[in-house]
Amino acid sequence: MMTEKKIDILVTNGIVVTMDDAGTQIASGAVGIDGDRITAVGPADELARHPAGRVIDAGGGIIMPGLVNTHTHAAMTCFRGIADDLPLMTWLNEHIFPAEARLDEEKVYRGALLACAEMILSGTTCFCDMYLFEDAVARAAKAAGIRAAVGEVLYDFDSPNYGPLKKGFAYTRMLLEKWKNDPFVTIAVEPHSPYLCAPDLLKTAFSISREYEVPLVIHLSETQSEVAAIKKRYGCTPVEHLANLEILAPNLLACHCVALTDHDIELLQRFDVKVAHNAESNMKLASGVAPVPALLQAGICVGLGTDGCASNNDLDLFLEMDTVAKLHKAVTLDPTVLDALTVLRMATIQGARALGLGDITGSIVPGKRADLIVIDTHRPHLTPMYNPVSHLVYAARGSDVTTSIINGRPVMENSQLVSLDVEKIMADVNAIARELVST
Amino acid sequence: MMTEKKIDILVTNGIVVTMDDAGTQIASGAVGIDGDRITAVGPADELARHPAGRVIDAGGGIIMPGLVNTHTHAAMTCFRGIADDLPLMTWLNEHIFPAEARLDEEKVYRGALLACAEMILSGTTCFCDMYLFEDAVARAAKAAGIRAAVGEVLYDFDSPNYGPLKKGFAYTRMLLEKWKNDPFVTIAVEPHSPYLCAPDLLKTAFSISREYEVPLVIHLSETQSEVAAIKKRYGCTPVEHLANLEILAPNLLACHCVALTDHDIELLQRFDVKVAHNAESNMKLASGVAPVPALLQAGICVGLGTDGCASNNDLDLFLEMDTVAKLHKAVTLDPTVLDALTVLRMATIQGARALGLGDITGSIVPGKRADLIVIDTHRPHLTPMYNPVSHLVYAARGSDVTTSIINGRPVMENSQLVSLDVEKIMADVNAIARELVST
Repeated sequence: MMTEKKIDILVTNGIVVTMDDAGTQIASGAVGIDGDRITAVGPADELARHPAGRVIDAGGGIIMPGLVNTHTHAAMTCFRGIADDLPLMTWLNEHIFPAEARLDEEKVYRGALLACAEMILSGTTCFCDMYLFEDAVARAAKAAGIRAAVGEVLYDFDSPNYGPLKKGFAYTRMLLEKWKNDPFVTIAVEPHSPYLCAPDLLKTAFSISREYEVPLVIHLSETQSEVAAIKKRYGCTPVEHLANLEILAPNLLACHCVALTDHDIELLQRFDVKVAHNAESNMKLASGVAPVPALLQAGICVGLGTDGCASNNDLDLFLEMDTVAKLHKAVTLDPTVLDALTVLRMATIQGARALGLGDITGSIVPGKRADLIVIDTHRPHLTPMYNPVSHLVYAARGSDVTTSIINGRPVMENSQLVSLDVEKIMADVNAIARELVST
Repeated sequence: MMTEKKIDILVTNGIVVTMDDAGTQIASGAVGIDGDRITAVGPADELARHPAGRVIDAGGGIIMPGLVNTHTHAAMTCFRGIADDLPLMTWLNEHIFPAEARLDEEKVYRGALLACAEMILSGTTCFCDMYLFEDAVARAAKAAGIRAAVGEVLYDFDSPNYGPLKKGFAYTRMLLEKWKNDPFVTIAVEPHSPYLCAPDLLKTAFSISREYEVPLVIHLSETQSEVAAIKKRYGCTPVEHLANLEILAPNLLACHCVALTDHDIELLQRFDVKVAHNAESNMKLASGVAPVPALLQAGICVGLGTDGCASNNDLDLFLEMDTVAKLHKAVTLDPTVLDALTVLRMATIQGARALGLGDITGSIVPGKRADLIVIDTHRPHLTPMYNPVSHLVYAARGSDVTTSIINGRPVMENSQLVSLDVEKIMADVNAIARELVST
């Protein structure tokens, strides 16, 4: 596992939980970084022999890949807690949609910056976003130094950003060209859902995603009422509808997948569709519980997502892991489903694969980009520690992350963001919130 | 809400979420403390007129009553993460019971101290404990300066602590005498469960609890298999069994109550039995989901509990609140059940009432003991803030608590414990853990 390359940054003195395919853990390990890449992973004493430009001491904690949030709407931080505990349509029509109608590119940029700050502070190093004004989200991600797959939401009606749908495709192509080869940002094509997107929209979106070889991201089978609406309109389930349109494919990321039939699962498996599981959002909105054990049993790649802050209300993937590992046990009455390691894989390498970034991030393997975090385990709620993976899923929370390195750059050290001015970001979003409720 | 009494400690410059019966919140408020009591609650500028011995600035955050953990096994911190994701009987027989057989009073004391540290650090100011060697838990609580209701677990077989059951009753009476009138510790009588306690044990325990006017705490209807076992043995449900023994009463705290019939709920309501809801533990052990919306609908007093660290694996009631508020929405498919305020009441005043301490703690009201905490809301994941109660349930985590005052004494300031030596406590439990796995 050693190389002769120079080491810019050596992260050492920690338990390295690599999340590689063999499940390698190194009890007293280190990770060497050269530029944007991981170049060495091994025992701390071996790596100490190489000269390093800089040494980051993990203090006996855990060194692991950064978490991957496969589904969110970053700028919805602006609406965190604006309305809760309401019937879905009241919540959307009386609170979320009116608030969203007052967004503009600047507000989205500021809200997305806050989301990036919160995500980095809680251990996320890569996220997938769907929203309006996505160029602003891409710029925010780049400013924060966080990896992101972002795409402008497309639907049948006019958008507050691009106007009519035709311009939505043009906007998406503009994003694809503008951000091509960016080290942080991948552009995805993102039709909202089968119920807000006509078949032509979906087929065009799919065709652009294939032309550029990027992910196609969609909300799919989020609720039973969506399934009922699609059945009424097209005579089949939402998944079957996409199958009929011939847009089920390995680059499709289907978000939610709560209301699935056995046939739906068979289709998702057959076409190697990826799934983003958003347990806490699905719970809070009373959508139900996605059949994740069955999806995993079928061999489907499932990542985790927080969804937006209006339906969660935070972006902490450590808390999401804890909920996911417990929820499915309660629903299936089987304590062995979704064991800790399976859930940690969903939050790291499987999430990266779901975004088409499995060769880039999601595990600590030489040659991959250096996206990694350090967890301080010397804390009462993480004491004692028999099994690091158990603690990461069942006991740790985002506030235990002390260091984050993304693409080889330290963006958080000693639990403080170094890539962003958090005080200004919070002040900006507080000002947006005052404006939103003032009239 | 003002008095003319002197103020020892003034906690000021915060949003006071009192959790009193009227739901009073004071936007820019303060709380005055004299000795162990709350003596004044009101606007910060009014309370500033009185001379105060000491001022604690809440920095614009939230001042609220400390949380009440109605069910845990504190010393099980020693087993945090020792085994997860296993069938219940494998987990108990191959991991938990063998580990527990090696406990002694000193280990229980050290494990309980760690639990007290973790609970205070995450905002809990009062807990109810059931375990072995409970005098050690009472001593740990007193050393930590945290309020506690503790009781020695009683069952039909011999105990590693007191030996035969007869001595268990004697031990319980010893605790009741020893800790009588203690400002922190209340002793409860705690038969384990209907399946490990014969009718005579249960009746004697009940009679002692009435003699001393203290809570009777029991595990009840935790799983469907418990219900099946009791039905086979006694021809009725566990709740009906206790009704037949005439020990359903207002001082009974029934922990779990996952597997209930409508008749069970009617009985719990009729006899004003209190319930401890342990959502995360019930999920992780695949016991199922307690019918909490139905219990609340019936007017039953329900508090929250974390259960022990082997089945959670933390003691953070903020995270438990988040899970509880979301879980029941997913199960009932109704987004309006268990709204944030209802859940916050369960974690505070209702928890206090469940322990018979509703006149002492659980809300910020003049005359009550001063058990309160301060939340720092100037953090990215709590920005912006439209509704403090929403944030407390859906976005805050234990690590956002910066100050804790229990019985008028600051036990945590600037997020640091002042009542305990955390480094020593962690070292002690790490040594216990090494010993437990070494042979």
